[in-house]
Amino acid sequence: MSNSMVKALQGDKPLIGSWCAIANSLTAEITARSGFDFIVIDMQHGLLDYQDTVSMMQAMDVSTTPPVVRVPWNDTAMIGKVLDAGAMTVIVPMINTVEDVKAAVAACRYAPEGVRSFGPMRAMLSEGADYPLRANKEISLFAMIETQEALDNVEAIAAVPGVAGLFLGPFDLSLSLGLAPGNNDGEQVFDEALQRVLKAAKANNLSTGILANEALAVQRVQQGFDFVVMSTDFMTLAGGLQMNLAKVRTE
Amino acid sequence: MSNSMVKALQGDKPLIGSWCAIANSLTAEITARSGFDFIVIDMQHGLLDYQDTVSMMQAMDVSTTPPVVRVPWNDTAMIGKVLDAGAMTVIVPMINTVEDVKAAVAACRYAPEGVRSFGPMRAMLSEGADYPLRANKEISLFAMIETQEALDNVEAIAAVPGVAGLFLGPFDLSLSLGLAPGNNDGEQVFDEALQRVLKAAKANNLSTGILANEALAVQRVQQGFDFVVMSTDFMTLAGGLQMNLAKVRTE
Amino acid sequence: MSNSMVKALQGDKPLIGSWCAIANSLTAEITARSGFDFIVIDMQHGLLDYQDTVSMMQAMDVSTTPPVVRVPWNDTAMIGKVLDAGAMTVIVPMINTVEDVKAAVAACRYAPEGVRSFGPMRAMLSEGADYPLRANKEISLFAMIETQEALDNVEAIAAVPGVAGLFLGPFDLSLSLGLAPGNNDGEQVFDEALQRVLKAAKANNLSTGILANEALAVQRVQQGFDFVVMSTDFMTLAGGLQMNLAKVRTE
Amino acid sequence: MSNSMVKALQGDKPLIGSWCAIANSLTAEITARSGFDFIVIDMQHGLLDYQDTVSMMQAMDVSTTPPVVRVPWNDTAMIGKVLDAGAMTVIVPMINTVEDVKAAVAACRYAPEGVRSFGPMRAMLSEGADYPLRANKEISLFAMIETQEALDNVEAIAAVPGVAGLFLGPFDLSLSLGLAPGNNDGEQVFDEALQRVLKAAKANNLSTGILANEALAVQRVQQGFDFVVMSTDFMTLAGGLQMNLAKVRTE
Amino acid sequence: MSNSMVKALQGDKPLIGSWCAIANSLTAEITARSGFDFIVIDMQHGLLDYQDTVSMMQAMDVSTTPPVVRVPWNDTAMIGKVLDAGAMTVIVPMINTVEDVKAAVAACRYAPEGVRSFGPMRAMLSEGADYPLRANKEISLFAMIETQEALDNVEAIAAVPGVAGLFLGPFDLSLSLGLAPGNNDGEQVFDEALQRVLKAAKANNLSTGILANEALAVQRVQQGFDFVVMSTDFMTLAGGLQMNLAKVRTE
Amino acid sequence: MSNSMVKALQGDKPLIGSWCAIANSLTAEITARSGFDFIVIDMQHGLLDYQDTVSMMQAMDVSTTPPVVRVPWNDTAMIGKVLDAGAMTVIVPMINTVEDVKAAVAACRYAPEGVRSFGPMRAMLSEGADYPLRANKEISLFAMIETQEALDNVEAIAAVPGVAGLFLGPFDLSLSLGLAPGNNDGEQVFDEALQRVLKAAKANNLSTGILANEALAVQRVQQGFDFVVMSTDFMTLAGGLQMNLAKVRTE
Ligand SMILES: [Mg+2]
Ligand SMILES: [Mg+2]
Ligand SMILES: [Mg+2]
Ligand SMILES: [Mg+2]
Ligand SMILES: [Mg+2]
Ligand SMILES: [Mg+2]
Repeated sequence: MSNSMVKALQGDKPLIGSWCAIANSLTAEITARSGFDFIVIDMQHGLLDYQDTVSMMQAMDVSTTPPVVRVPWNDTAMIGKVLDAGAMTVIVPMINTVEDVKAAVAACRYAPEGVRSFGPMRAMLSEGADYPLRANKEISLFAMIETQEALDNVEAIAAVPGVAGLFLGPFDLSLSLGLAPGNNDGEQVFDEALQRVLKAAKANNLSTGILANEALAVQRVQQGFDFVVMSTDFMTLAGGLQMNLAKVRTE
Repeated sequence: MSNSMVKALQGDKPLIGSWCAIANSLTAEITARSGFDFIVIDMQHGLLDYQDTVSMMQAMDVSTTPPVVRVPWNDTAMIGKVLDAGAMTVIVPMINTVEDVKAAVAACRYAPEGVRSFGPMRAMLSEGADYPLRANKEISLFAMIETQEALDNVEAIAAVPGVAGLFLGPFDLSLSLGLAPGNNDGEQVFDEALQRVLKAAKANNLSTGILANEALAVQRVQQGFDFVVMSTDFMTLAGGLQMNLAKVRTE
Repeated sequence: MSNSMVKALQGDKPLIGSWCAIANSLTAEITARSGFDFIVIDMQHGLLDYQDTVSMMQAMDVSTTPPVVRVPWNDTAMIGKVLDAGAMTVIVPMINTVEDVKAAVAACRYAPEGVRSFGPMRAMLSEGADYPLRANKEISLFAMIETQEALDNVEAIAAVPGVAGLFLGPFDLSLSLGLAPGNNDGEQVFDEALQRVLKAAKANNLSTGILANEALAVQRVQQGFDFVVMSTDFMTLAGGLQMNLAKVRTE
Repeated sequence: MSNSMVKALQGDKPLIGSWCAIANSLTAEITARSGFDFIVIDMQHGLLDYQDTVSMMQAMDVSTTPPVVRVPWNDTAMIGKVLDAGAMTVIVPMINTVEDVKAAVAACRYAPEGVRSFGPMRAMLSEGADYPLRANKEISLFAMIETQEALDNVEAIAAVPGVAGLFLGPFDLSLSLGLAPGNNDGEQVFDEALQRVLKAAKANNLSTGILANEALAVQRVQQGFDFVVMSTDFMTLAGGLQMNLAKVRTE
Repeated sequence: MSNSMVKALQGDKPLIGSWCAIANSLTAEITARSGFDFIVIDMQHGLLDYQDTVSMMQAMDVSTTPPVVRVPWNDTAMIGKVLDAGAMTVIVPMINTVEDVKAAVAACRYAPEGVRSFGPMRAMLSEGADYPLRANKEISLFAMIETQEALDNVEAIAAVPGVAGLFLGPFDLSLSLGLAPGNNDGEQVFDEALQRVLKAAKANNLSTGILANEALAVQRVQQGFDFVVMSTDFMTLAGGLQMNLAKVRTE
Repeated sequence: MSNSMVKALQGDKPLIGSWCAIANSLTAEITARSGFDFIVIDMQHGLLDYQDTVSMMQAMDVSTTPPVVRVPWNDTAMIGKVLDAGAMTVIVPMINTVEDVKAAVAACRYAPEGVRSFGPMRAMLSEGADYPLRANKEISLFAMIETQEALDNVEAIAAVPGVAGLFLGPFDLSLSLGLAPGNNDGEQVFDEALQRVLKAAKANNLSTGILANEALAVQRVQQGFDFVVMSTDFMTLAGGLQMNLAKVRTE
């Protein structure tokens, strides 16, 4: 079994990770060498094309930090291209229905189990010659639960064979629940939503992840999330520059 | 209200713009500094990827010329990525039905009004911290009317809440009407099509735009179009080089 | 008639080609200058974005070797973008039904015959000013037959007007037939599948192509395939380096 | 007078800036929008080529923050290319002698005052049509003083007409003085070196800049430096990620 | 003999060319397909890196228009890299002395005639296997005469074996003569400078080229120049956009 | 001691390596994963810019194969940039004199031992926080001996402190000796040149490397060379495609 993210999730410790949104292999390498338990390349909201993702995956492989790719959408063609580039773990956004998640699972698997087309280019290089035999078993899919509709279907989504975990998007979920985009702890619908997702996941032996931040990361772990994204390169850079400058300005 | 294209359309003057089809931030900057009232980055027929669009948007922001992005297709994922990069005004091609335009509107708006996923990266940088509060109201969508089917539905399309304007594509519309690709003024079906689009737009208080050329721009304004694309970087360069050479050759 | 791939297929000789999967215009030029009868830029499993494809098409046009583009998926928008960049022959993967192939044909043709949007940028440059008149007739589409479902429908698929040929994908077809990914000559279902595709093509006067390798190329020609892909840049480089090193190591 | 860095230096306040070492126009835009008084694109130790510098200069021009470029070396050709791209202020490293600084001055000026070759491409676009008339007067050159040899010659270097300021590199200077690379305040040779540079500059009415950090910025201002670089994108990102992670790990 | 620029110069007609300053292979292809007799990729004032030059050379080779490269400076390393990429004709700026031109000649030739290092990568691909035998003979070097110093030495420069021609830079020459940058016809020192360069070239059987513009091209040919650059992509695009817009604005 | 190339050279086995000339991080990764004992990124004759080198260095660091960089020329600025990017071993071409090699050594070392400027960006990331302390000791420099002049000075060159080895370039050396570019075994001047270089190296306890090919690699090892480059990505791809095609054509 060589999926490093899956292995990491099997350990005792909750995982703390970061998110790459800048299209650059150097910022990706910086992130990968920062000590996180996993890293996500964000093709959805990151300002990235496919080629950026490929070179960022290379840059991340200089470290042993498990890499994960969030694809832009539940799109069979792009999921296939990302897997061909060597991704072993993908997060698929906006999984709202059982049909959605079945399509995502099928996109990750070769026939006859799925509809992924065969042509593992970099995957064969980085995973080795037995990749075709292992791919269907080892590739790991996290479905994003981030709308009211997804929440309504979460128990059924979690029960679909081939899903490895649920990843909760608090900003979109909040918007869909009629709240401001963000973390709305204390709002009953928000708190209940988190519990419902966690429960559906546990019932099906799935991992659970969530996007958080520095302040919330520990709390999310205590709530039972297995892996937590706590930062992005974009915000860390922008925030860091402003914070440092503010200190000097006020001295 | 900070959507510069919307502000420009609220002025008294019709707007004259140009189209960027070359994947290059320098040609984009040259265009943005040429004095046009607005500029369109064309992801549909321009030879561009998403990253090219992002760097061209940066290059355009060195000027105050309002930037517009035409997305490649009526695709929720790519519309979202373009908005995340800071586009405030998008043109969506091939809107043929009410369903098409409703999907495009939804792609431009956060829940609960739409299905846009939250993650405004560069948009937050260029628009400021209150962007999430303003986005649904300020982002502006132009639907392209360019087929017989679209024409048949144009009154209903124009009436869909959330459309800011109609943009007429004369080449595709001509083909769809059985004419040669181009401007077919004088052909009754073509002339009537323009009038029908203009009328449907006015009835719903929408802006109207059209692709024209140097010779037709003034006429289109006189016909009532609010904004007119009169040139592309690609054709201006190719045509300019050939014209200049021809003059020297014949001297 | 200026589609160089179509012309080559009209000759007496079967065509031997190669596949470009590396996102680089120099490797594309090396391939184009290697003496093959045609070259395919593989946007599906190659690690390529659209811009890579454009610059690789330029690099290939330094030679007279006919270029072909395999698009990532049966996607109207991307097929249009590839044609706008000057591709005259496209291979569309995973054509499983008559509806699939009709959509692919429509994506390749301007209205009223199809739904391709007008805006031939580089195509006009490389093909000349009469391109709009010739495009619908000269653009050539190969449908990939690579699943059990496609096989079940192959006679109907082959009969759809506007298809120029069938291209058989042995790896995906094998997976779909329950075999290991690869060339499964000797397995009855595999051998019969090849014959069925060849027969359906001949019955409709279509060209037939297939992905093979150095060892199988001649056999595939003898079986009746008109064009055979025998290598990829990726595998030739990786295999060549390893083979050469092995010789030195064992001396 | 349109050199924004020169204007800023004429103000009452000391300037606090940041350094861009990552080859990316988005990180450049993030930096430019962070509130600094000036920004330096570092072609010497930044991992940048010339094209990166050009697109980063575009990204910076979306803000009004004065941009400065440190060239890789005292090289006439590259200084010219950077000026052609629109840089109005350049820092030239390793100016050790009067001959060095005269060569740098000449590289910044058109004949007959210097040897810069004429061809202001983007400079004409961003600075306007009268750029050729203004360039020799307005382009501003900062000479880096960062070796024992430079220190020995600093009074003579400062007296060369055409130098706008001295920029002290404490890391290289420390190494050259036999100290560890860094800020060696308290070491007599280091402290005296700073004073000597400041004095030579003041005697010739030159601006003085220095590379510092968050902790030292205010002190450097108090010592009399007119502009201080306090951070880099590279270190701010790397340090920020590690610091945030450390907080979560220890909670 | 396969140097297409040399062949073109041997014809009866004076050659009219254009200049590429935009780092883009599509604008290079547009230029190459515009009908000019030759094209120059300008690495000196164009906003180009080496890789841009390589892909623009590829784009130009889709046509039969002879390509020429102006290197950034009289630099042995970069001249070698450009030749390795397949350039057969180079223009070297700022040749002021016999030593300068001897160094440029040496940079273009393998030992024992010169100091060019062996490693013709793309050159071997585009020129064929006998390239090493032909290179020293066929590579063509144009020395730029564009300062008072160069003018003073022009007869001696022209007599150095291995120079194929002189290329006059009127802007830098004007500056060096104390005139405004541009074409200063009617100014005696300028007119005499042109005549002196032409005479020195003819006396040594060298070709002569000059940068001009649309208005001056024919006159320069009549003065005896063999090849004339009449436009740049940058100016043609910027000027074309502004001119077209101006027409519409004033209608 | 963390210079992996130095460690490899301290082993018992001669090292067999390959050369990367294609500007692509995927071909670099393919090469790095092919089993060679070391890999050289060739900035001199490879079609590479600095940024290409940086991303290829990242791609190579996914493996444990020691990476080496050949810089384009004996240029202090570019040697510094390559070291800042993390190169621990560099090959400098065309070292002809003691002055040449002293300049190259100085470019690799911080003051007071040399003139390298301080700013280890990626080097600090990949080598760790103690890099500044280790750099002067661990960075390894190979001087290319490839002209008659270099040969005349080879004993003196080899004796300069700070040189780690001599790398023989047989093509340039042959040209300089009046022979055809290539391996001229059997020609007395060539054979003697190799022996002289080997002897000078051994006398100073230096490593010796040479460019060879598949056929000559073992012989070069037997002659006493410690590391041998046997292939390039460019030639392996071009040769492999042609060879495979030839086999199919002749069947
Ligand atoms: Mg397939
Ligand atoms: Mg979301
Ligand atoms: Mg259209
Ligand atoms: Mg000049
Ligand atoms: Mg050599
Ligand atoms: Mg320094």
